[in-house]
Amino acid sequence: MFARRLQQLNPYKPGEQPKDREYIKLNANENPYEPSPKVAEALKNIPLKKLGLYPDPDSSLLRSVIADELNASRGVLVAAADQPELPFKITPDMIFCGNGSDEVLSFVFYAFFDSDKPLVLPEHTYSFYPVYAGYYGIQLKKVPLNADFSLDKQAMLDVDSTGMIFANPNAPTGIELSIEEIDGMLAKYPKDKVFVVDEAYTDFSGHTVLPLLQKYQNLLVIRTFSKSMSFAGMRLGYAIGNPELIKALTTTKNSFNHFPADAVCQAAGIAACSDIEYYARNCKKIMQTRDDFSAKLVAAGWQVVPSKTNFILAAKKGFSGNDVYQAIKKDGILVRYFDIDLIRDFVRITIGTPEQMAALLESMLKIK
Amino acid sequence: MFARRLQQLNPYKPGEQPKDREYIKLNANENPYEPSPKVAEALKNIPLKKLGLYPDPDSSLLRSVIADELNASRGVLVAAADQPELPFKITPDMIFCGNGSDEVLSFVFYAFFDSDKPLVLPEHTYSFYPVYAGYYGIQLKKVPLNADFSLDKQAMLDVDSTGMIFANPNAPTGIELSIEEIDGMLAKYPKDKVFVVDEAYTDFSGHTVLPLLQKYQNLLVIRTFSKSMSFAGMRLGYAIGNPELIKALTTTKNSFNHFPADAVCQAAGIAACSDIEYYARNCKKIMQTRDDFSAKLVAAGWQVVPSKTNFILAAKKGFSGNDVYQAIKKDGILVRYFDIDLIRDFVRITIGTPEQMAALLESMLKIK
Repeated sequence: MFARRLQQLNPYKPGEQPKDREYIKLNANENPYEPSPKVAEALKNIPLKKLGLYPDPDSSLLRSVIADELNASRGVLVAAADQPELPFKITPDMIFCGNGSDEVLSFVFYAFFDSDKPLVLPEHTYSFYPVYAGYYGIQLKKVPLNADFSLDKQAMLDVDSTGMIFANPNAPTGIELSIEEIDGMLAKYPKDKVFVVDEAYTDFSGHTVLPLLQKYQNLLVIRTFSKSMSFAGMRLGYAIGNPELIKALTTTKNSFNHFPADAVCQAAGIAACSDIEYYARNCKKIMQTRDDFSAKLVAAGWQVVPSKTNFILAAKKGFSGNDVYQAIKKDGILVRYFDIDLIRDFVRITIGTPEQMAALLESMLKIK
Repeated sequence: MFARRLQQLNPYKPGEQPKDREYIKLNANENPYEPSPKVAEALKNIPLKKLGLYPDPDSSLLRSVIADELNASRGVLVAAADQPELPFKITPDMIFCGNGSDEVLSFVFYAFFDSDKPLVLPEHTYSFYPVYAGYYGIQLKKVPLNADFSLDKQAMLDVDSTGMIFANPNAPTGIELSIEEIDGMLAKYPKDKVFVVDEAYTDFSGHTVLPLLQKYQNLLVIRTFSKSMSFAGMRLGYAIGNPELIKALTTTKNSFNHFPADAVCQAAGIAACSDIEYYARNCKKIMQTRDDFSAKLVAAGWQVVPSKTNFILAAKKGFSGNDVYQAIKKDGILVRYFDIDLIRDFVRITIGTPEQMAALLESMLKIK
């Protein structure tokens, strides 16, 4: 009854959504601040008639608004002091929108990665990548991280690969490579293979590799509205790259589901982009909370991996990640742990509001 | 730079959305009546906070509401007098929701159709099916329609196939098989191959094969909110079948994009299901308009294929479908024609409001 390819599947497991009680939810890297009031306004004002008609399959206005926003902001909501200006203008034909960056990534795997050579990626990175590879029957070469959790750049370059993908900052480590380091990798990587940098968390680092698009036609950057734009419930992600790559993604989309981003999602995304300052303020707050909370944990004897994202990895000597996860859950707070070698001792904690983190700190400091 | 599988793609082409002027849009089988006011209310009342959190990946409440609605209505919005009662209760674990029935169908192709035998389908049916087959590398066996545009049931059964799919009523012909005919096909079809009936237009026919789910574990029924529920802009479709098939679709979804139906779409879908009477009234109006309009065209010497959907095929001797399409477009009305053998002489006309159809009739009667 089932296609044989179904057996290749090993579905992604997202953060749990238990319903037994109200939890402080710090397990899915969601944004603790709600979307801009302009999004609510957009939802109220969308003409009912429009919901009955198919949406713009190309998300044209949304893509043009995103391009404007990237051009206005050096490509990142809270640009760090050392983030260079974009050396070119991002145009709408360099942007592809989909139903969450998860869907965009799925199309990327379909469109750019062949099955005869392995796709190279770090052993620990966004755990959906191996799932897509299974979906499309793409081989993988997983390169172990260095002891400090950083990417082993040379080992990744040494693989004869069909393409490369990693998140920067990486998940679940929170560690980022500099633009210079990625520039160095791209300089050595074959120009006819697509090199994907998933910048889901870039708005919490202040850095982006977008300026490198001018030099590298094979660089593709992935972004999501879910994290920094408080938009996880609405499902919107996009890719930025040269128009030829974008065209391939569009062809792929039009062979799978012509209208992935619905009319409300497009309108709400456009509204969100009209209030970038609001989201930039929230990102700054989250970065500040992250650094404060990390310092307090370290002061209390915890190990914390220095993070450039909206989450941190933390561990306490003598306790497994599962121990910590369970103890915290009893106090009504959800974090996440991963039953995998490198980080089995850690929990991954999404950065919430200062109040949420104070409650979490209290819970964690009871673990002795 | 591009994966070889990209070359298999031949993207779907939906009805055009030109922006040069305001058209009466009768080219995409959209519903001319707007969604229920309850949908607008749901959009206004959705808590902003919820948009920042990932949606329920399983659309649990929505699925349960859809099951209730199907159980209450003999499985079809406007049940015909001869539509039998459902001989069982549809439960939420028999329902799978996705981002439009287009996405649901894509998962169906992935999960159930192997590549070693062909998938059998009518030569003329929903034109997205061959696109999915290309996406996943599935062979096709296209069986020509009978001269009266009906399905050649025996020829379809004669194929040694990996599965079967067709729309009922079929597109773009508008012709339906009876439950008894489909029962007869299922009785002869291998029980270990999935038999898909796409009921996108069933609410305009008054018939559904849902009662057959009791007898056939390999029957899968596809539905969309786009047509009868005036929901094309929101992207919601679903499959109904035995829980094992539904579980396979869920596994597939969770390997592609965990959260395809966003929080607003789920809330709006639930709201729509709370006002079924409203949509049933609209369907009745559309069925009446369809029959009136068809009769007038026939009286004026046009050929009209008798339709059980919200569209009709119409032709005028001496004119190609393209001639008619062009002439009507000059009057500011969009219909659709297909440059394929069987129906090259026809235009496909979506049934709009009586006012829209009066304007169209005036335009069509000028063609001489």
